[in-house]
Amino acid sequence: MRPKGFLFSVARAGIKKTGAEDMCLIYSEADAAAAATFTTNKVKAAPVWLGMKRIRPGRARAVVVNSGNANSCTGWPGMRDAEETARLAAAALGVPERLVFPCSTGVIGVRLPLEKMRPRIKEMAGSLGSAKLKDAARAIMTTDAYPKYFTRKVKAGSKEGVIAGIAKGAGMIAPNMATMLCFVMTDIAVEPKALKLALREAVEHSFNRITVDGDRSTNDTAFAMANGALGNTPVSADSRRFPGFRRALSEVTYELSRMIARDGEGATKLVEVEVRGARSDEEAKRGAFKVANSMLVKSALHGADPNWGRILVALGTSGIEVRQEKTDVFMGGVKVVLRGVSTGSEREARRKLKRKEVKIAVDLHLGRGRASVLTCDLTEEYVRFNSEYTT
Amino acid sequence: MRPKGFLFSVARAGIKKTGAEDMCLIYSEADAAAAATFTTNKVKAAPVWLGMKRIRPGRARAVVVNSGNANSCTGWPGMRDAEETARLAAAALGVPERLVFPCSTGVIGVRLPLEKMRPRIKEMAGSLGSAKLKDAARAIMTTDAYPKYFTRKVKAGSKEGVIAGIAKGAGMIAPNMATMLCFVMTDIAVEPKALKLALREAVEHSFNRITVDGDRSTNDTAFAMANGALGNTPVSADSRRFPGFRRALSEVTYELSRMIARDGEGATKLVEVEVRGARSDEEAKRGAFKVANSMLVKSALHGADPNWGRILVALGTSGIEVRQEKTDVFMGGVKVVLRGVSTGSEREARRKLKRKEVKIAVDLHLGRGRASVLTCDLTEEYVRFNSEYTT
Repeated sequence: MRPKGFLFSVARAGIKKTGAEDMCLIYSEADAAAAATFTTNKVKAAPVWLGMKRIRPGRARAVVVNSGNANSCTGWPGMRDAEETARLAAAALGVPERLVFPCSTGVIGVRLPLEKMRPRIKEMAGSLGSAKLKDAARAIMTTDAYPKYFTRKVKAGSKEGVIAGIAKGAGMIAPNMATMLCFVMTDIAVEPKALKLALREAVEHSFNRITVDGDRSTNDTAFAMANGALGNTPVSADSRRFPGFRRALSEVTYELSRMIARDGEGATKLVEVEVRGARSDEEAKRGAFKVANSMLVKSALHGADPNWGRILVALGTSGIEVRQEKTDVFMGGVKVVLRGVSTGSEREARRKLKRKEVKIAVDLHLGRGRASVLTCDLTEEYVRFNSEYTT
Repeated sequence: MRPKGFLFSVARAGIKKTGAEDMCLIYSEADAAAAATFTTNKVKAAPVWLGMKRIRPGRARAVVVNSGNANSCTGWPGMRDAEETARLAAAALGVPERLVFPCSTGVIGVRLPLEKMRPRIKEMAGSLGSAKLKDAARAIMTTDAYPKYFTRKVKAGSKEGVIAGIAKGAGMIAPNMATMLCFVMTDIAVEPKALKLALREAVEHSFNRITVDGDRSTNDTAFAMANGALGNTPVSADSRRFPGFRRALSEVTYELSRMIARDGEGATKLVEVEVRGARSDEEAKRGAFKVANSMLVKSALHGADPNWGRILVALGTSGIEVRQEKTDVFMGGVKVVLRGVSTGSEREARRKLKRKEVKIAVDLHLGRGRASVLTCDLTEEYVRFNSEYTT
């Protein structure tokens, strides 16, 4: 099951010291509608600056990705390297340069080894179709423990299309290594504007709701292409088919984001933090992120410690409205706090917190605002890895 | 060298499982001008709610502190326990209840063991003067590795007074255990309003500029008493002597805050993060805190890794204005980034980062805003401690 009209190839350019695959070419046989969201970090990598400019008309043919080097904080020479990468791919593919997007992930502050990449770009253009979705997912990995890909069918009237996605990211490690990259391909015809809308929403409820250490990388990118190979009437934002497409796209990015939240050296638990009863969804989101980013909450979860005090402490500093005498806290489904005071159920909660997937929920009883974010526990391995990693 | 007219006593009430001193009484022989700042956490412990109300007239006679139990998230019964503690001390001392302040630090969510504390409060009132400043500093410790106290002389006209301070807090550990408490005593006569002004500024540039994990406890309190035993004309906010007093007080709290930043299981380095050239002091502070709270920056520092990419990543997500092509970064005094690009001095920086006290400085070249915060490195011991600590 794969979206028609998309071809992949991968290569080993020696950018990664391990010698593993570190380049990947994603190619659409026809001009595709395209949309992208980029990192909100004020410090952005060269390919992000280029991508932000190039995505405006909403069209694309190819994406050329390298892992092992982020081409970030590399100044003007880095901008030229990003342009050169796209130019080489465009020439080898015989497509307009403006339809080719370069993407990078890896170490910061080091120039791309273009001399190594040049011959591989040509080779990849000549061997399109030799790699599967999983191979592409593997080639974009940096510190990821496993390749991340997901495919699902979606109806477009009487026809059935496919949405496929690959992603990389393992936030437990390091955002400068563990940039989130995601590429979604579909053979359904979608208008660029509708694709953009759907991608924004999908990202907001998936990649924007996972947090491992609260930092955003300089390279984060989610990129979507819809090449219309299915031959359906293009889905527009006001068409009856739009909600179904949007839902399907969100499902793909949600599954990929769970794979990222779960991944990482040392992470042992997938943790969902839900805040409800906030004055607004926005406040709920802010509170949930504060709890999910608290080193103390994350450390306690690693030890299955039902330390609800740390949750209240984090919420109280999030800047949102909290009334302690109204607040309930649930850990692993067990109500540990009722109106700000212990229920005495810590023992039961401890048992539940030993699971691989745990949920923390807070009900503020102040309104109808609600939000959920995904994170993982904080382990000694995280610190070991991040203090030993060498620039 | 100690401020005249202040007496201390300590006791073992068995609140701490270790059997160490866990209560302390601070008593002024005369009514003292008093000021306090409390946690900004929306979730506050019972003694904080009480203290906020009781401090308004700006007078105090005694503070009764217990360690081992925070009396936080204990609901209305906890409020009554805090009041009862103060009432017992007031009765034993023969002073008005409204001039006695209870303070607590320790575990969250558990009622105070009043039956154990009652006889000790009476004993402490009877043995005032038996403890030194250092003993008092030790009795308020929780996870602190050592007692924190500092004394300095200060001129008040022809007379020479003393400012003495004790503090506790070891942010590396856990804010629910590692509440920041600080008590400053001086025999200089200071008007309540002037004392409040001076304390606010002192706290803003000391305790409010240390960060270990970005959370604030439910109990944080800085408390100052000026009993006028020196007999000087009271220092008012517009008097010539005010700036000198303010500076001396700030020095005491600054020294105490450095002791806190340096303390903690596993912390191996004291780290100063300075942001300058920001559009405003406020933006500089926000940026400095974001860098100082970044788990990735703190992990890298533990390994003496000159990973400046992580500093830029943290700054870029702080919400302040950053132009990467203008930004310089210094690590251990070595310029590692010039206008957003590596200077190639990572090796030299690595050598400097091996020291026990290191400085990170960022110049944004956008304005004259400047701020400094203190933090420490993130170690495996932090995670070990915090995942094993049991509620």
